[in-house]
Amino acid sequence: MQLLEGRKTARELEGKLQERVLEMIEKHGRAPKLVVVLVGDNPASLSYVKSKEKACQRTKIDSKIIKLPKTVSQDDLLKVIRDLNKDSKVDGFIVQLPLPEHIDESTILNEVAPEKDVDGLSLLNAGKLMNRQSGFVPATPKGVMMLLNHYSIPLRGKHAVVVGRSNIVGSPMAKLLLNNDATVTVTHRYTENLKHYTLQADLIVVATGVVNLITADMVKEGAIVVDVGINRVGDKIVGDVDFENVKEKTSYITPVPGGVGPMTISALIHNTMDAFLNKMENSKK
Amino acid sequence: MQLLEGRKTARELEGKLQERVLEMIEKHGRAPKLVVVLVGDNPASLSYVKSKEKACQRTKIDSKIIKLPKTVSQDDLLKVIRDLNKDSKVDGFIVQLPLPEHIDESTILNEVAPEKDVDGLSLLNAGKLMNRQSGFVPATPKGVMMLLNHYSIPLRGKHAVVVGRSNIVGSPMAKLLLNNDATVTVTHRYTENLKHYTLQADLIVVATGVVNLITADMVKEGAIVVDVGINRVGDKIVGDVDFENVKEKTSYITPVPGGVGPMTISALIHNTMDAFLNKMENSKK
Repeated sequence: MQLLEGRKTARELEGKLQERVLEMIEKHGRAPKLVVVLVGDNPASLSYVKSKEKACQRTKIDSKIIKLPKTVSQDDLLKVIRDLNKDSKVDGFIVQLPLPEHIDESTILNEVAPEKDVDGLSLLNAGKLMNRQSGFVPATPKGVMMLLNHYSIPLRGKHAVVVGRSNIVGSPMAKLLLNNDATVTVTHRYTENLKHYTLQADLIVVATGVVNLITADMVKEGAIVVDVGINRVGDKIVGDVDFENVKEKTSYITPVPGGVGPMTISALIHNTMDAFLNKMENSKK
Repeated sequence: MQLLEGRKTARELEGKLQERVLEMIEKHGRAPKLVVVLVGDNPASLSYVKSKEKACQRTKIDSKIIKLPKTVSQDDLLKVIRDLNKDSKVDGFIVQLPLPEHIDESTILNEVAPEKDVDGLSLLNAGKLMNRQSGFVPATPKGVMMLLNHYSIPLRGKHAVVVGRSNIVGSPMAKLLLNNDATVTVTHRYTENLKHYTLQADLIVVATGVVNLITADMVKEGAIVVDVGINRVGDKIVGDVDFENVKEKTSYITPVPGGVGPMTISALIHNTMDAFLNKMENSKK
């Protein structure tokens, strides 16, 4: 069994990214810039936003957090987004989810200009993924792909089973694996006999938020297990996989924390770099 | 074994659609209008376009075919599309595929206004399907869903195996089945041991263009088989399934011809009706 060390991998990739950022500063007189819009003071959101800010600082990417009160109106939030769309110094921005209940998430996400949508959550970027065109892919599934790629794990012809089908993780994850020539099964709350599917999998990606959903009896000997779950149990953070018992059966497994989480942040800042490069490329035309 | 009679189902649905079209003519003074843009004179395309025109005639939907020479430039074709986007009397239009090689298919498809994109091939409509929002879904997978629905075939929790992953059929088919709570496996040219997957399937949807790809030994007793293939063998049209031998094992199976083909056309004209209704709804606002 080998750990898929997301934290270590993310730091390695950040080292290379920082070099490229410094080149960009040299060449274009400024660093790529990421803005994070944070509505309210959800502690988990605050913690994610802090991590994103720190990753920007480590890689010399310019970052800014716009904090809005949780009572902000949808119209005022839309105005903030439209201003960011127009701001030529902002290469990419994200609206941290979840949003307060009085705000319609998809209305907000679809207002983000596709070329700055570094979270890949707009309809246009979702459509590009669906139709196999290049665009911004949501950070978590992109981070998983970067991690698998870093460990040179082949996907073509392998059977990948994705547990969970959300717009943010499960569904784009499945499509990315499919686009990379894996045979892909998507399971979810209505799947009968989940174990029947996971037992066949060469690769299992779990993103459900259900603690200990995947147990050792559900995993084939030698499988690769990627755990996207981040669940607080007492004062511990655990994933969706019964790590201690499952790990012995796997060839590779992600720890939680230190697995997919840091790769998600890494994917976001790499998307920001790509947004910057796309802009510079287009401004030459 | 029961046949999933696409032709008969399509005609039944057309009867109901015609009643609604007549109501619309009464209420709004005109019928929904579909325009088909046909480039060149590919015989298969000509035949599909004819079928679409006839379905419009049967349901009293207004239709028009714009024929362009196969030498038409991409810019001239784009101009035709922009004119159709602006024409307030056109509710929906499609560009018949395939296009000549000198024309970039995705550039053309993305120029179609999403609200008139009744073939569901624009990025925005693909993104809506990806993110589970309502929009226009490509006609073939939509037609399959209408057929399964007509025969009251339940999908929740069933294992659906889709063979093929194209942007036009396989991938949207898989996402529609997933959005309808099936557990979905997508297989393709790189899948190792296709039979391993199809043998588990409660529902198999095949869209590959490979004659006799699915044989009786690959199908579970009682499975439902939907054959999207349309292949010419000598002077016969056959699907991707070895129909004569497979049919005995199935609970339901589509014939070819007379299965998915007519449902594809039915889905297209239902999308056209929806485009008309959306427009009337929006013009009230």
